[in-house]
Amino acid sequence: MIVLKLGGSVITDKERPMTADRIAIRRLAEEVALSGVRELIIVHGGGSFGHPLAERFKIAEGFKEEPQLLGFSKTHRAMMELNRLIVNALLGQGIPALSLPPSSFIITHDGRIKALNLEVLRSSLERGFVPVLYGDAVLDAVRGFTILSGDQLSARLALELGASRLIFGVDVDGVYTSNPKLDLEARLLEVLRLEEMEDVARVGGATSTDVTGGMLGKIREALPVVEAGIPVVILNAGRPHNIFKALRGERVIGTVLCR
Amino acid sequence: MIVLKLGGSVITDKERPMTADRIAIRRLAEEVALSGVRELIIVHGGGSFGHPLAERFKIAEGFKEEPQLLGFSKTHRAMMELNRLIVNALLGQGIPALSLPPSSFIITHDGRIKALNLEVLRSSLERGFVPVLYGDAVLDAVRGFTILSGDQLSARLALELGASRLIFGVDVDGVYTSNPKLDLEARLLEVLRLEEMEDVARVGGATSTDVTGGMLGKIREALPVVEAGIPVVILNAGRPHNIFKALRGERVIGTVLCR
Repeated sequence: MIVLKLGGSVITDKERPMTADRIAIRRLAEEVALSGVRELIIVHGGGSFGHPLAERFKIAEGFKEEPQLLGFSKTHRAMMELNRLIVNALLGQGIPALSLPPSSFIITHDGRIKALNLEVLRSSLERGFVPVLYGDAVLDAVRGFTILSGDQLSARLALELGASRLIFGVDVDGVYTSNPKLDLEARLLEVLRLEEMEDVARVGGATSTDVTGGMLGKIREALPVVEAGIPVVILNAGRPHNIFKALRGERVIGTVLCR
Repeated sequence: MIVLKLGGSVITDKERPMTADRIAIRRLAEEVALSGVRELIIVHGGGSFGHPLAERFKIAEGFKEEPQLLGFSKTHRAMMELNRLIVNALLGQGIPALSLPPSSFIITHDGRIKALNLEVLRSSLERGFVPVLYGDAVLDAVRGFTILSGDQLSARLALELGASRLIFGVDVDGVYTSNPKLDLEARLLEVLRLEEMEDVARVGGATSTDVTGGMLGKIREALPVVEAGIPVVILNAGRPHNIFKALRGERVIGTVLCR
């Protein structure tokens, strides 16, 4: 079973609120269908759907005032909207995609998933469905509510369900030695070993590997997955055929995180 | 806390597939908002959204062949579509409605809810949200999958959470002595006592009370709720102000089921 995380920046137009990249979504659904992989969980990010609302209502910080309730509901609704487009694209390709909103079965503890009830997820996989989850506004035992990232969720699912691989589809080619958007000398790392990951996760990338933002989060979430012996691949899902190839286990330009 | 079930025939055009009655949905959302009731769970039916697909793919009968998987996904998608319209209408009235798809946290056992994990539902109520659930295509431990009716779900929630009332909003005025659409002599029953309910539930209405179809199902599901001392009201949600009044505890033409 493979866990495929599709980054929000791949499936939405990050510059325009609530704007999906329908062409990319359709292409990705086609690539999933053509790959023939059916033991699959898809997790997608929020991009321009979830993030602007989550920020406006400060959902990640937890409950502080009444108006946030409506903000929470609207953030979740935005994510359901984006999820609907993904599920529709998959159904259009004949894939029995099943939407599983994290908020309806996960309560985090200070932002982290603790106990995880996987009964429905496991049962749906057993029956041949492809569950589709996403980064979501979720209830939190400490903060009242918060944001659960698709990265945390996909890593946790890969770990708990013993996935054969975790694929992070993002909008860059992988992990670089420095920020490729600022540094012409930036070099793509084909492999990142556990010790290097630990180093990056600890210091936040102030060493030889200048990893920031979303990539740092991914490496941190991937740590226990790699420790458990499950390979994690970070690759560019914006490039046609990459997801198709990665699902089939073929070589793709990107970074492999492994022990 | 009140559990309000809105029948599919009230919120959709039963004659036309996938057609919502947007005017009714808007009015009902307004009535809920104006009532001021916030400790509330809303459960809605499928009407022309869920039913045609569920029938076409024989979802209630359980898994028999592969193509049903896509049918299951499509049935659930249709229900999410209808749910989206309800949630949007409630959010539009400033109610922090929170969609909770039954399929994502309930696995039935031969068509019936057995263990029910109410953690997210309870937590969302505590935090001030109004959970919105619905009759849904759900996984089933015996049949593979099946249909969970909104009637069974709302009755079970009222019972487990100790609701103060369970309101069934339908498209007729209540329970009649015979079918009001066929019999001019049909008389509306203002009260139906537990013994009468048991009688109806057992014989399927072949006695003095000729109750059929959906109404019979409601009475059967309501039995344990009424036994537990929770009053159940069946009224016409198609008539303006009825839901508003019923939520406020005012008298409305309809049938009260009680001990």
